[in-house]
Amino acid sequence: MSIDARLSELNITLPAAPAPAANYVPYVQSGNLLFVSGQISSGADGLICGRVGDDLDVADGAAAARSCGLALLAQAQAALGSLERVARVVKLTGFVNSAPGFTDQPEVINGCSDLMVEVFGAKGRHARVAVSAPALPRGVAVEIDAVFEIG
Amino acid sequence: MSIDARLSELNITLPAAPAPAANYVPYVQSGNLLFVSGQISSGADGLICGRVGDDLDVADGAAAARSCGLALLAQAQAALGSLERVARVVKLTGFVNSAPGFTDQPEVINGCSDLMVEVFGAKGRHARVAVSAPALPRGVAVEIDAVFEIG
Amino acid sequence: MSIDARLSELNITLPAAPAPAANYVPYVQSGNLLFVSGQISSGADGLICGRVGDDLDVADGAAAARSCGLALLAQAQAALGSLERVARVVKLTGFVNSAPGFTDQPEVINGCSDLMVEVFGAKGRHARVAVSAPALPRGVAVEIDAVFEIG
Repeated sequence: MSIDARLSELNITLPAAPAPAANYVPYVQSGNLLFVSGQISSGADGLICGRVGDDLDVADGAAAARSCGLALLAQAQAALGSLERVARVVKLTGFVNSAPGFTDQPEVINGCSDLMVEVFGAKGRHARVAVSAPALPRGVAVEIDAVFEIG
Repeated sequence: MSIDARLSELNITLPAAPAPAANYVPYVQSGNLLFVSGQISSGADGLICGRVGDDLDVADGAAAARSCGLALLAQAQAALGSLERVARVVKLTGFVNSAPGFTDQPEVINGCSDLMVEVFGAKGRHARVAVSAPALPRGVAVEIDAVFEIG
Repeated sequence: MSIDARLSELNITLPAAPAPAANYVPYVQSGNLLFVSGQISSGADGLICGRVGDDLDVADGAAAARSCGLALLAQAQAALGSLERVARVVKLTGFVNSAPGFTDQPEVINGCSDLMVEVFGAKGRHARVAVSAPALPRGVAVEIDAVFEIG
């Protein structure tokens, strides 16, 4: 099944690839690696803000992480023309805006990890880091960057 | 001297390569780079938890970082079959669960850096980032990921 | 215009490439990627310390980030002999020592991003992550690492 067909089947419509918040670019390709800038959580109503473990629960946090994943896919599609060219999701680094004492960062970042596996199957299985931050740009709940391998 | 002989000489027995805590994989190879997922501090008695500069002192923190290094080596061995295939430790990124005002993250992450140099000699000398986090998954003291070059 | 000429035009004198604070090396080349270790903010009077959003304002923070950028350039020059060999600034990861509630990390890290574009032009446009940390080594305000592509 093509990636586009799979996105359809999953009822996923990718957002417009967000413009960078500052003086950098959303992705750089070097050799067959595509480095995508950190994507911040956002949805139909704008940025998804707040601290997980406090303002947001784990399920909210996972939904925020999934929104970062959708933005990462949108950037990869903008970079490559088609997600068919993704040979592998290599690495995700996820930062969770965390309340003191909140230690379920893995469950939050799963919102993005699960999306990658839903969309790409085995090629979507990636190396990962999930950590916390005391604050994130614009007050968002989650920020995630990615490295993709291009086929 | 072979890496196995050196591990023996150092009285190091690698732990079993830990299973990922969530929906990702412990490593991905892309070209001749091996990206290993963030490994969290753990020992014979389970996870090594707590904040450094508060629950744990610098020496405790460095021991926790060393345990992350052992897990990184175990993952590299599982990925490659043998640590002889490691051509270079390229990069470590270390996150220290830090008490407010604690600023000795470099000395903590040295626990992992020193291990890499002990095991691999000059090939173990790596680029590095050492920062803090206000919390880490499961409450662990240290999380470190790695990039290895494969020969 | 050569990079050296551009540095001159910008009145930029690179600092000496700082020695690592611990048991690691300032850079590792793997294939045509140069991984540079996290560089901490410092100036003519020593380390630039403090929390942004509290001890330091955004402009101070951006100046601290620029100093990290100068150190990254100094390391790249030491690694490569000449900055002419930089084909692309691929990725910056910036950590801002942030007061609670401070969410302008992008504006801070711009201090480094802007420098890369001033020096390298289009080749200086990079993928980026900007996050916060509750503390950084030695109490510095900003730490940034980089990946460069070598031509």
